[in-house]
Amino acid sequence: MDILIRIEHALEVALSRSGDPAGPPRLAEAIRHSVFPGGARIRPRLCLSVALACGADGRALETAAVTGAAIELLHCASLVHDDLPCFDNAATRRGVASVHRAFGEPLAVLAGDALIVLAFESLALGVRRAALLAPLTVLVARAAGTPLGLVAGQAWECETEVVLATYQRAKTASLFACATQAGALAAGADPARWRALGDCLGEAYQVADDINDSVGDAATLGKPCGQDLALGRPSAVAQHGLSGAHDHLDRLIAASVDAIPDCHGAAMLTVLIRRELQRLLLPAIAASRAA
Amino acid sequence: MDILIRIEHALEVALSRSGDPAGPPRLAEAIRHSVFPGGARIRPRLCLSVALACGADGRALETAAVTGAAIELLHCASLVHDDLPCFDNAATRRGVASVHRAFGEPLAVLAGDALIVLAFESLALGVRRAALLAPLTVLVARAAGTPLGLVAGQAWECETEVVLATYQRAKTASLFACATQAGALAAGADPARWRALGDCLGEAYQVADDINDSVGDAATLGKPCGQDLALGRPSAVAQHGLSGAHDHLDRLIAASVDAIPDCHGAAMLTVLIRRELQRLLLPAIAASRAA
Repeated sequence: MDILIRIEHALEVALSRSGDPAGPPRLAEAIRHSVFPGGARIRPRLCLSVALACGADGRALETAAVTGAAIELLHCASLVHDDLPCFDNAATRRGVASVHRAFGEPLAVLAGDALIVLAFESLALGVRRAALLAPLTVLVARAAGTPLGLVAGQAWECETEVVLATYQRAKTASLFACATQAGALAAGADPARWRALGDCLGEAYQVADDINDSVGDAATLGKPCGQDLALGRPSAVAQHGLSGAHDHLDRLIAASVDAIPDCHGAAMLTVLIRRELQRLLLPAIAASRAA
Repeated sequence: MDILIRIEHALEVALSRSGDPAGPPRLAEAIRHSVFPGGARIRPRLCLSVALACGADGRALETAAVTGAAIELLHCASLVHDDLPCFDNAATRRGVASVHRAFGEPLAVLAGDALIVLAFESLALGVRRAALLAPLTVLVARAAGTPLGLVAGQAWECETEVVLATYQRAKTASLFACATQAGALAAGADPARWRALGDCLGEAYQVADDINDSVGDAATLGKPCGQDLALGRPSAVAQHGLSGAHDHLDRLIAASVDAIPDCHGAAMLTVLIRRELQRLLLPAIAASRAA
């Protein structure tokens, strides 16, 4: 089965109970709006690709898909809350209305909460090997929570003093490193060997996002741009300048490829990573061509 | 060890990592403010009391304490989000400033998010019997999430048509029923036999809360009152009148005691439940004496 089909299937399974007619219907709609149609699903694709590269099949691949979907649900939850008026106050996301614009602020808060709960529920229901559930749950929770995960990353925006690398590692790299490590763990490989790849890719992704935010346009991005500057947020472009940010990204792409551990799927992963990081910069490339 | 000491200890253990100096310090403060000092800790006390009544000791009791603490963290998360300007806009909680008043709205959203993640992380770290982790996590997640849990309960406030019993079962009874069932499960007893007690107690608790909201005063309650009427929310007092709500509560107290399954700790549980439901009504009793 194609990786993307596996992921969408795992997400559909995770969301199927939330649409039960016994529950509040508008919350169910807001949850679906948060998850479908999705973005690039880069985190779960990374999780499954690493699992495949480590030789996973059958139940191990199913565990990787369930875990990748849980990571994606946490990512979607963070987008919904990040778009709220008290944070970015973004009117659009993935080219359509943000959740609070479509359903109101209370349902946006609750949809995010429900997605976080759902991530852990779907892990507990979907990870069939009992011995894997605790380490996968701890890995995912640490990447999502505090002191070093996604929620901590957003919270650094509320501090007066922030180290850019600490902020970006928590806000973006944490879920990428979780995806690579969880993929390895699901396949029975050593997750520690796969952490550096996730860290590098996450940082590269964040720098590409900063470049797009700085020079892309809202129509191509499907969300507002110029937000980092407008909200005074730490960003690679603010710190290094645009040309410096591009140089930094080039170094990170090379470091990501170098960080792929020896495994039978290393060549496949190298192609995937190069293609993915090229794709990430498309909005910035489109903007520079239009200029 | 006393039940309350066990619970506070389990909560301290759960929160210890979030205060790591590598994380954002104000988020750590906001999380502590959400959890300490606590309210009556009624849900984790119920979880531990049921476990004891089922004969739990040693590791089983530790599992009950960890699960009770996870349930309390989810309860605290819901209070923080429920107090937000887009919901109740409450300035106080437990007699002190609500989280968004003390730390701002962004950190209140994030503290709630972090607490939800922490609840599942602490289950995965603290439940030592691998075979129990999946059923306990699913139980807690269903009680917290959607379509029938706490988040769904809050979301019913955003629907135009609501059945009072459905709303209250989701918003309040779900965590109570989770507490009784989780206590039984931790002790190796059949959780299904303990569900009715949690359902009854949860409904009783909600009716008592509605009565307090209607006739109590903010100083005794430590939070604003008259909120149900002001926000047009479904409530037992709005539906049955004050005297009808009191009658309904009396029936629920009797039903709760009747719902205690046969076990060696049944007498202890009966005393606890009667005392607890009396204590719940103290704000309303104080107000009626002052009137």
